Amino acid sequence: MPQQRRAQLTRHAIVVAAAEEFDRTGYDATPLSAILRRSGVTKGAFYFHFAAKEELALALVESQARRWPKLRGDWLRRELDPLSIAVGMLSEAARLLEEDVVLRAGTGLARHRIAEGRGLDSEPDWETLLLDLLRRASADGMLRPGVDPEAVARVAYAALVGARVLGSRREPGAGVRMEETWRITLQGVASPEWLSNRKAR
Amino acid sequence: MPQQRRAQLTRHAIVVAAAEEFDRTGYDATPLSAILRRSGVTKGAFYFHFAAKEELALALVESQARRWPKLRGDWLRRELDPLSIAVGMLSEAARLLEEDVVLRAGTGLARHRIAEGRGLDSEPDWETLLLDLLRRASADGMLRPGVDPEAVARVAYAALVGARVLGSRREPGAGVRMEETWRITLQGVASPEWLSNRKAR
Repeated sequence: MPQQRRAQLTRHAIVVAAAEEFDRTGYDATPLSAILRRSGVTKGAFYFHFAAKEELALALVESQARRWPKLRGDWLRRELDPLSIAVGMLSEAARLLEEDVVLRAGTGLARHRIAEGRGLDSEPDWETLLLDLLRRASADGMLRPGVDPEAVARVAYAALVGARVLGSRREPGAGVRMEETWRITLQGVASPEWLSNRKAR
Repeated sequence: MPQQRRAQLTRHAIVVAAAEEFDRTGYDATPLSAILRRSGVTKGAFYFHFAAKEELALALVESQARRWPKLRGDWLRRELDPLSIAVGMLSEAARLLEEDVVLRAGTGLARHRIAEGRGLDSEPDWETLLLDLLRRASADGMLRPGVDPEAVARVAYAALVGARVLGSRREPGAGVRMEETWRITLQGVASPEWLSNRKAR
C-alpha cells in the first residue's frame, strides 16, 4: 500500500475511534489511551496526525461544520415547496445523525467550549433556515390559519435535538423519531391541500 | 446564626454554584476551583460537606431523582383525564427545568457515567409513564383515529429533552418551547371533543 494511502487510513481509524468514544463517554471523560486502544493505533502514529486530543475534537467539529451546509444546499436547490424542504431536510439530518457516529459526535461537540468562538456551531444556521422556510410556507398558504411558523420551526428543531440525544442510546433511532415528529406535527399545522398533495406523491 | 443553619447555607451555596458551573461548562470540564470561586466557600468548608467533586455531582443527581417522582405523583393524583395529565406534567417539568438550575444540572448529569448503575436515571420512568398515559388516552377516545399513542409519547418526551438542551442557552426557555410543542402536536393528535373541552375549561 502506498504510504500516503496508509496514512489516510490511520487518520480515519483515529477519527472514527475518537467519535465512538466521545459519543459514548463524552469528550472530557475520554482519555487518549481509550482512543488508541479502540483504533489500534500507536501513540507515535497518533501524534503524527494530531498534536493533542483537542485537535482531534476540533477536526470532528470542523467535519460536521462542512457537511451540514452541503445537505442544506442540496435540499434548497430541489424544486420543492418550502414545507417539503423543511420536512425532507430535517428527516435526512436525523437519519445521518443516527447512522454516522463521526457526524453525531462532531455535532454534539459543536456546543462544547473547545469549539467556542470558532464559528463552527451550525445551530444558528438551522434555526434561521427553518424560520425562513416555515415563514415562506405560511405566506404560501401551506400552514393552517392561525399557526405560528416560528413556533413550528422551533418545535421541529428541538425535535431534531431531542431525537439525536435520545436516539443515540435507545430504539428507535433518531431517523424514526424525526419521522414520527413530522407525521404528528404536520397533521396539526399543514393545510389540508398540502397534506393531500403530499399523500398523492 | 446557629452553627447548623450556617452549615446548611454553605452546603446550599456549594450545590447551586456547582450546578451553575456544570450546566454551563460541563461536569468533566469544571475544576473544583471554579465551584469554590463562584460559591465563595473555602476549600476547607467544601471538604466538610463533600469528599470530592464526584460526590457533589451525585448529590445533584440524587436531588433530581427525588423530585421527579413527586411531580409525577402529584399529577397522577389529580382528577384529570390521562391526556391532560401528560400535557400538564411535561409542561410543568419543562418550566421547572428552565427555572431551576440545580434540577437542570442534576437531570443532565443523570445520564453521565458517574450516575451509571445507581438507578438514578429517571428517563425510563418518563417513557413508561408517558406510554401508559397515551395508551389510556387512546383507549378512551381522546386521540384521533389512526394516531399511534406510542409515537406521541416518544415525540413528547424527545420534545422535553430538546427543549431542555436548547432552552438552557437561548430564548425562548424550555417552558415556552414545551408549551409550543403541545399546542402544535395536540391539534393533530387529540380528538376534536378533547380539544373543545380543553378550550372550554
